[in-house]
Amino acid sequence: MSLLVIGTLAYDTIETVHERRENVLGGSATHFAVAASHFTAGGRAGPRLVAVVGRDFDDEHVAALRARGVDTEGLEVADGRTFRWSGRYEADWNTRHTLHTELNVFEHFDPKLPESYRDSDYVFLANAAPQVQLRALEQVDGPAFSVADTMNLWIEIAREPLEELLRRVDAIVLNDEEARMLTGERNLIRAAAGVLGMGPRYVILKKGEHGAFLMGSDVHFALPAYPVEEVVDPTGAGDSFAGGFMGYLAQAGGHGPASLRKAMVYGTVTASFCVQGFGIEPLCRPDRGALDGRYDELLAIVTV
Amino acid sequence: MSLLVIGTLAYDTIETVHERRENVLGGSATHFAVAASHFTAGGRAGPRLVAVVGRDFDDEHVAALRARGVDTEGLEVADGRTFRWSGRYEADWNTRHTLHTELNVFEHFDPKLPESYRDSDYVFLANAAPQVQLRALEQVDGPAFSVADTMNLWIEIAREPLEELLRRVDAIVLNDEEARMLTGERNLIRAAAGVLGMGPRYVILKKGEHGAFLMGSDVHFALPAYPVEEVVDPTGAGDSFAGGFMGYLAQAGGHGPASLRKAMVYGTVTASFCVQGFGIEPLCRPDRGALDGRYDELLAIVTV
Repeated sequence: MSLLVIGTLAYDTIETVHERRENVLGGSATHFAVAASHFTAGGRAGPRLVAVVGRDFDDEHVAALRARGVDTEGLEVADGRTFRWSGRYEADWNTRHTLHTELNVFEHFDPKLPESYRDSDYVFLANAAPQVQLRALEQVDGPAFSVADTMNLWIEIAREPLEELLRRVDAIVLNDEEARMLTGERNLIRAAAGVLGMGPRYVILKKGEHGAFLMGSDVHFALPAYPVEEVVDPTGAGDSFAGGFMGYLAQAGGHGPASLRKAMVYGTVTASFCVQGFGIEPLCRPDRGALDGRYDELLAIVTV
Repeated sequence: MSLLVIGTLAYDTIETVHERRENVLGGSATHFAVAASHFTAGGRAGPRLVAVVGRDFDDEHVAALRARGVDTEGLEVADGRTFRWSGRYEADWNTRHTLHTELNVFEHFDPKLPESYRDSDYVFLANAAPQVQLRALEQVDGPAFSVADTMNLWIEIAREPLEELLRRVDAIVLNDEEARMLTGERNLIRAAAGVLGMGPRYVILKKGEHGAFLMGSDVHFALPAYPVEEVVDPTGAGDSFAGGFMGYLAQAGGHGPASLRKAMVYGTVTASFCVQGFGIEPLCRPDRGALDGRYDELLAIVTV
């Protein structure tokens, strides 16, 4: 079934304790789409992308997305520069400092879905102002399953539209701190239950190296992270998780509890590739067989 | 098969953000033995205990342990006061401040195993100076499976005897920070591998609310924590985990990879009861059926 992502294409400058990389192709929609493309290979229609870039965006990067089967009909090129982000990670990877954000053309992003995208079945609203996410969602004709990401900023300054969004989507993706901030509950189980009370059928809590869990009225599933021995750059791990998760669902064509559990495993192993390098290269490297290999490995690790 | 614990009986004073409790029956051997007693009920010989208390130790507390089937032949009563500890937990439960430690009779603890304990099959060396742990282990005639706990203090001031201990035991229990400190590796997978390189066949890493994992040459198993909505007091959770883990192994009479995985689940659910109250009361409350109920619940949560 068809899969749509609305988000950012960006150039990132990333500092880790080991390295510094400038102008790496990044952005939520980039990581999501490349991650999801593993599930749409072999003739299936690739993920549809809605995003805006500036005149400075490298044609080769558009070509790289197309080579992954990504449908770029919804990619808008606007006057100005592409969204830029720079950040620095502490040695423990859990602490990330944003050094600089240049919204550029993304500041006035008004997502316009091509006519051909309106029938999308699976929709991922990557992190953006909830007003923008709502405008994008309204352009889809009754999606089968919609998932939104958000961040602390919107919880603080756009609470009302965020609550509106939570009533409209099927699932919300949050990290542990966001779930606590949104609900005022320190205990993650109560925080997740509190988020469910705000409207979505499912909440997915990401805990980085500690894994992720999924909660809904018909499913409670917890999964440790895939054991990666050498993290190179965690940028995009959350969007890669979402891409693997949604990519699998769209391929399976279902989102019942059994599919959601499998999708959590695919999201986790897709993200595990992302963190092993900079940009999209580590996500492009493995074939579907390598993903399935890690799927089986992770299954062996969690099976009692 | 028989199970032995060498550790402390103590009186704890505990402050949480909600409550303060004085002189709560605590100690590593107390929590371990009560946790393990769930697996030795119904006529099986209870866990054997080696510990020292002072003249102030309440007879009723000895009776409470005996009522759980705990063999107290190895309980020494010495002149002086019982070990006392007081601590305060931050709202997130992950940060614990030790306010006061009075070693009292535990300062000169020299574990002496009764003759009847020497044939113990499963042995848990609760946290103590590694020299003391080694002296206790030497008194057991070829145990089938021995596990040790330790703490940051011994990693800092008793590295050499700790390394000797690591060569002698079958498994070591560590929290994430201890594993990092012991190996100098930040990545937990590499830290665990580093610990294995120091001698033990297995390392069990406890991550509190994020669960636990077990690594050895023949097994790699990860498990999230059982979802407890209301933590009252986490004191003793690690020893309760060890008690459930070893209790199950001793009952099963085996410690192959399949048994170790199940033991991890039993350790986790046993610890989940411990944190729901102060002292041993929350560990005594459930019957084996309640433990098995949470075992099945946790299995459902982790099954793909």
